[in-house]
Amino acid sequence: MTILEKARAGELTAEMIYVAQKEGIDPEIIRAGVASGEIVILKSWRQNINPVAVGKGLFTKVSASVGMYENDDTIDSEMAKIAMAIKAKTDTLMDLSVRGPIDQMRETVLKTVDRPVGTLPLYQTLAYAQEKYGTALDMTPDDMFEMMEKHAAEGVSFLALHCGTTMDVINRAKEEGRIDPLVSYGGSHLIGWMVHNHCENPFFSQYDRVLEICKKYDVVLSFADGMRPGCIADSLDGAQVHELVILGGLVKKARAAGVQVMVKGPGHVPLDQIQTTVQLQKQLCGGAPYFVFGCLPTDSGAGMDHVTGAIGGAIASYYGADFLCYVTPAEHIGMPNAEDVYTGVMASRIAAHAGDVGKGHPAAIAWDHEMSVARRELNWKKQMQLAIDTETATKVWKDRSTNFSSECSMCGDFCAMKIVGKYLRD
Amino acid sequence: MTILEKARAGELTAEMIYVAQKEGIDPEIIRAGVASGEIVILKSWRQNINPVAVGKGLFTKVSASVGMYENDDTIDSEMAKIAMAIKAKTDTLMDLSVRGPIDQMRETVLKTVDRPVGTLPLYQTLAYAQEKYGTALDMTPDDMFEMMEKHAAEGVSFLALHCGTTMDVINRAKEEGRIDPLVSYGGSHLIGWMVHNHCENPFFSQYDRVLEICKKYDVVLSFADGMRPGCIADSLDGAQVHELVILGGLVKKARAAGVQVMVKGPGHVPLDQIQTTVQLQKQLCGGAPYFVFGCLPTDSGAGMDHVTGAIGGAIASYYGADFLCYVTPAEHIGMPNAEDVYTGVMASRIAAHAGDVGKGHPAAIAWDHEMSVARRELNWKKQMQLAIDTETATKVWKDRSTNFSSECSMCGDFCAMKIVGKYLRD
Repeated sequence: MTILEKARAGELTAEMIYVAQKEGIDPEIIRAGVASGEIVILKSWRQNINPVAVGKGLFTKVSASVGMYENDDTIDSEMAKIAMAIKAKTDTLMDLSVRGPIDQMRETVLKTVDRPVGTLPLYQTLAYAQEKYGTALDMTPDDMFEMMEKHAAEGVSFLALHCGTTMDVINRAKEEGRIDPLVSYGGSHLIGWMVHNHCENPFFSQYDRVLEICKKYDVVLSFADGMRPGCIADSLDGAQVHELVILGGLVKKARAAGVQVMVKGPGHVPLDQIQTTVQLQKQLCGGAPYFVFGCLPTDSGAGMDHVTGAIGGAIASYYGADFLCYVTPAEHIGMPNAEDVYTGVMASRIAAHAGDVGKGHPAAIAWDHEMSVARRELNWKKQMQLAIDTETATKVWKDRSTNFSSECSMCGDFCAMKIVGKYLRD
Repeated sequence: MTILEKARAGELTAEMIYVAQKEGIDPEIIRAGVASGEIVILKSWRQNINPVAVGKGLFTKVSASVGMYENDDTIDSEMAKIAMAIKAKTDTLMDLSVRGPIDQMRETVLKTVDRPVGTLPLYQTLAYAQEKYGTALDMTPDDMFEMMEKHAAEGVSFLALHCGTTMDVINRAKEEGRIDPLVSYGGSHLIGWMVHNHCENPFFSQYDRVLEICKKYDVVLSFADGMRPGCIADSLDGAQVHELVILGGLVKKARAAGVQVMVKGPGHVPLDQIQTTVQLQKQLCGGAPYFVFGCLPTDSGAGMDHVTGAIGGAIASYYGADFLCYVTPAEHIGMPNAEDVYTGVMASRIAAHAGDVGKGHPAAIAWDHEMSVARRELNWKKQMQLAIDTETATKVWKDRSTNFSSECSMCGDFCAMKIVGKYLRD
């Protein structure tokens, strides 16, 4: 039985108990959430990987993506980024390598890290097909499914697949006249392959095969959004919503097959459409966990897009998004370096926490409360501990404290602050 | 006649025409907004200072605060911060010096900069009284008003005054049992003085005198919020709302006297209370421009509070806040250095722009649209120009472009991207 089937049967698994403890809630809430599909547990057969739960009522989670993409990228360069992401306390990682020794990279990640890892197997399939046939356009559906199964078997916790990017949806995009037609890297290559080969998307036309593999390895299916809008103007257009409608149908089938499923979302969304975007996903996809990329409420934040992403991510979380894919300062310009990875994770964690406070998560509110008390008591050490980014806060504190005035002497022997403090207390 | 009186009389002043051009709208919209009090124009008799309009229907503005606060701070150190704030395109500046050669500092700022400057005259009054009497607690109401007039006469564009922090409000705070009773520096000193001297707040009890000075120099009155909540848990408590109710009454009196007025707001506000906070201010204060500090939707962002402030600022702007006081990475820890000032202004500008896009400002939407087209066309130079933070974006671009793969070779002679592009276009 898969974990979803066990949850439905009323069984509390070790993973459920583990994540419940980390969330500080009753394992029964986790079990019920997994059973209804509103919570997914990202897990692996590998003992070094601790499960993480994503979904309704839980802390909003953050994921950091790395991977060999440029010619110069190496396993070492990407592992250095992963180390920074972990230092910044990312909840999960994605290895999105598209070139180089992809197998060894994934093996290194899976053996090393202590948290769930996701992949987008199509990337490696493209690289594999290029090597085998001389062109990725000659890739076969069997190649795609074999690669997917390979990743699942190796202990990847969630597989990103563009199951809803059908020919119908592509033709809808064609009619929409988008400004930026396609910004999903994998989606674009998949569509190029479909158009070139006059062929429906195998992850849709052979969806049973997708579910079979996910079920066999009890891996979480993470729908990728080939129609992710690439700019504010394209947000919530027919192509995006059509794909989401199709994904909603596929969510039902996955659940019926006993497969845990979550849905990836945008991307560029103006502030006035974030609530609708989240609500629509929740309605169409039966409350499946929503994994958003940002969101980015302006197109013009290049160089500071971790800030843009934090704005959108906080609001998305507040309205019910469960999982934030980080955005780094390098977004829209180049690939992030290790420092960008750290900054991106931290900005997303602040967004996730602000969203949790806003939606009334008791532990998030208690955290802020504790910080406020530490602040009132001028307990600097505790403030540093409680800061989401303890390291940066401490760095600023040490840098500035040499310059601190030892004491305010504004009022001479009498201190206005002490007078106020006494008055308000007594 | 003041500019407000002229607006009511139907007169289009040079300032109205100037700011209308900068906003890209009809000067008549500015005139009507000034007449109704929903727009204020920050201006100065000094020819080097260009007016800036703040309020309904306009671009959300950003203000950066500097000032000599620590023992080591000098005019040079603060002017270096101002240079960074201007480089980051802050709309206005505040000189909040509390020690050192405050007069010379303000004179240097006012003579040098090309945009409106605000001050909080009480700070200098406290320093002055300390020197004159040996303790700031012996400061007299005359000292306060004389300092206020001095600042107004010198060409300061907006004066921050705690007019609504009355004994009633202070007693309300006492009853509320706040976690962090007072976090407004000026407010705390004012209250200490009031309690020590058993005396009502002169900016309230002698409000006519406040209005007389503002009218004489046609300076914008900017209500400071002595009851600004210092943490999420204290947000929208009785003390904060009581003060806002009082300020609403004072807005009416200011307008009746022909004085332009805006209102300062929080501060720490959870995401679920930002809409209410803004709506309440707009309702109680007759649509007066709202100048918020952040907002900060979590207490735990120390070290990264420019991100926290951008989240809250964007949402506040979206719901109608007009003016964002920046938050730097040093907030809650120490005073910002020049780099922090740059980062703080940029984060606030991204928030302001995201808010403007969200509320449908046509020029903000057009800006994002232009960026999206530049992105589709891979026009990197234009993308850099259109980035809100051109400098940082360009830095990342130059850093990463040496590592760019010259060309994707994934598909050999056929390119999936070109196939997709052709398919979607044809």
